Amino acid sequence: MAAPASNLRINGDRLWDSLMEMAQIGPGVAGGNNRQTLTDEDGEGRHLFQKWCEAAGCTMGLDQMGNMFARFEGTDPDALPVYVGSHLDTQPTGGKYDGVLGVLGGLEIIRSLNDLGIKTRHPIVVTNWTNEEGTRYAPAMLASGVFAGVHTQEWAYGIEDAEGLKFGDELARIGWRGDEEVGARKMHAFFELHIEQGPILEAEGKEIGVVTHGQGLSWTQVTVTGKDSHTGSTPMPMRKNAGLGMAKMLQLVDDIAWSHKPDAVGAAGHIDVFPNSRNVIPGKVVFTVDFRSPILATMEDMEQQFDKGAREIAAEMGLGIELEKVGGFDPVTFDEDCVSAVRNAAERLGYSHRNLISGAGHDACWINKLAPTAMVMCPCVDGLSHNEAEDISKEWATAGADVLLHAVVETAGIVE
Amino acid sequence: MAAPASNLRINGDRLWDSLMEMAQIGPGVAGGNNRQTLTDEDGEGRHLFQKWCEAAGCTMGLDQMGNMFARFEGTDPDALPVYVGSHLDTQPTGGKYDGVLGVLGGLEIIRSLNDLGIKTRHPIVVTNWTNEEGTRYAPAMLASGVFAGVHTQEWAYGIEDAEGLKFGDELARIGWRGDEEVGARKMHAFFELHIEQGPILEAEGKEIGVVTHGQGLSWTQVTVTGKDSHTGSTPMPMRKNAGLGMAKMLQLVDDIAWSHKPDAVGAAGHIDVFPNSRNVIPGKVVFTVDFRSPILATMEDMEQQFDKGAREIAAEMGLGIELEKVGGFDPVTFDEDCVSAVRNAAERLGYSHRNLISGAGHDACWINKLAPTAMVMCPCVDGLSHNEAEDISKEWATAGADVLLHAVVETAGIVE
Repeated sequence: MAAPASNLRINGDRLWDSLMEMAQIGPGVAGGNNRQTLTDEDGEGRHLFQKWCEAAGCTMGLDQMGNMFARFEGTDPDALPVYVGSHLDTQPTGGKYDGVLGVLGGLEIIRSLNDLGIKTRHPIVVTNWTNEEGTRYAPAMLASGVFAGVHTQEWAYGIEDAEGLKFGDELARIGWRGDEEVGARKMHAFFELHIEQGPILEAEGKEIGVVTHGQGLSWTQVTVTGKDSHTGSTPMPMRKNAGLGMAKMLQLVDDIAWSHKPDAVGAAGHIDVFPNSRNVIPGKVVFTVDFRSPILATMEDMEQQFDKGAREIAAEMGLGIELEKVGGFDPVTFDEDCVSAVRNAAERLGYSHRNLISGAGHDACWINKLAPTAMVMCPCVDGLSHNEAEDISKEWATAGADVLLHAVVETAGIVE
Repeated sequence: MAAPASNLRINGDRLWDSLMEMAQIGPGVAGGNNRQTLTDEDGEGRHLFQKWCEAAGCTMGLDQMGNMFARFEGTDPDALPVYVGSHLDTQPTGGKYDGVLGVLGGLEIIRSLNDLGIKTRHPIVVTNWTNEEGTRYAPAMLASGVFAGVHTQEWAYGIEDAEGLKFGDELARIGWRGDEEVGARKMHAFFELHIEQGPILEAEGKEIGVVTHGQGLSWTQVTVTGKDSHTGSTPMPMRKNAGLGMAKMLQLVDDIAWSHKPDAVGAAGHIDVFPNSRNVIPGKVVFTVDFRSPILATMEDMEQQFDKGAREIAAEMGLGIELEKVGGFDPVTFDEDCVSAVRNAAERLGYSHRNLISGAGHDACWINKLAPTAMVMCPCVDGLSHNEAEDISKEWATAGADVLLHAVVETAGIVE
């Protein structure tokens, strides 16, 4: 297919205005957004998106998981559509761009094609995946996961939020439970634009991240048991200090991650100490080890090294230890042609770029199981995300949507 | 003064019965006690103690901090009294013996002297110090601290509990705010019997701990600041992981304590990690380092080594660090003659014994500033204390009170 000309650009001001208008729905307490999945605000955001899509000449599809599919017709009725999108739901104290940029960036493609009277051979479908964030209803990327056959719809419908309200019931309550069978659609390709949620692009002054892989994730919850005892009256040789055991294991996590450089990472973000009193030696510590790598063998190697090393530390210190795998997914290798389309688009448009590995999970990671997929990333200030202070510049958003436009249009085929 | 004969013994069954009767007041949820200071239950316990003291021929004094002084007259009206006692208040999930054994062991001395018609030259005063535990109203050992001039009474009266109720108001509300000036009393000596709250005596099969020193305590609250960032999308070299910094500092605490063996100890019981989420690298950790030693120079050396080492760790990792001294007291050396009286008593009575350093703070540590002081310790099961499962045997309680009796009576002088 012919590549679009480099003067084909989206309208950055219009994209930005739409981002700001969407951010009026479900405002946060500190300048960001609280538009959690299946709330009234989520419903309101969906209505606005639908109104915009229909004004751009799309027809809206809705499946039984609430996934929204705004279809812009192509010239070939038999060609499978190129899908593009992300999610409109936010964290409880989320930003204005995480997810939203990918959905409204997709819409901006349609608007720009309309401006210029350009048609593609393949239809383009702009998608809003339900409940990407997973904070109200765990796990994250729930509806794209059902779409990709990772979870069953029945299981998803039964998940309860903190107040005991079921996902399926709340989806119906807000009026966005459709009739369409989930996962029945076939895709020619899928592209997702997202903010980086990390510091690399900004630090290196790059405008575009060409996402080649999604990191695999392994979460192991570690419970170390020692013995609660008085910090003053327990001699050093008689202590079973679960806190000290945890400290040695945290060092081990760091050592293992560094020994698998450059792309592997490891840390513990969750640490609970019991009884957590200044004058009681911790009798129990529960923490979660997070290992990530784009290479499956590296993931397995890190898990095995930690399992062995942590058990050795516990045995040497007379501590009990339990290790439980509480989450994870395999690394993702995105489609070579789709990734090339993103890289070529950045090159053609004159945007500085580098390859990136996505550290976070995204809907694209599940959809990659079904169709050729790639992601475009743009920088975010200070790598900050999942925070109301999350920020990007209009220029970054514009560059990301320009690259998305070119990758999608090249894949969908411009009708000359 | 003449030593009492080895056949002078307390009545172990009566002591035990009184311990069990007192434990009926403010029962816990798991077999122990919740008789926190200045609660209605504390008031009820005080009434029972007063009734018992008056039945034993004592007259009760009460000072403005609620400290109770049950005086049993001696034969010499000019002789300063020998004081003996501990505290009746408990932790919220406390045991039946921590503190209570020392008060009722003191009462048992008077009852036993009555049984045998023995008089001493010096009066004996059995004392219940208010708010030793410090959980409802921090700090611990509050009223003995005011008595010893460590704190002012005005400051103590203004301390608020978690509901904003002031110490002075609650003391008046339960009816135990006396008129007597705090600290006006002069003492010939002070003895305190207490459970060990550590594992040494039981592990070595010793019946009596002769307490020669009280460990000094140093609490330093450490705040390590890094940067909250995504566990997946932040490359290892760009992390500022406050949790990992804390881990290295916990190892440093352990190394420092071991390098000052045999009596120094160190640990962190309190650790709070922020934001404490599985996929966020900790941006802040707050923890409290607890160092103890019976030697002042060792305390100072440990503090300095930690301060220097922790700052080096933070600097190397690009982390911020703040160190704040949030508590502590100097090591205590108990009075040589009083300690000898305890050791001689154990020897005379045929109880196995060893020297101990008190790892916890006790009222005796403050009173040691005012008068010759010593402590007697008895074993507790598994070193467990500040726990409803705290346990001792009747035999251990009897041995402890026998030694207390002999040390007190020898110091007070038997009238032949």
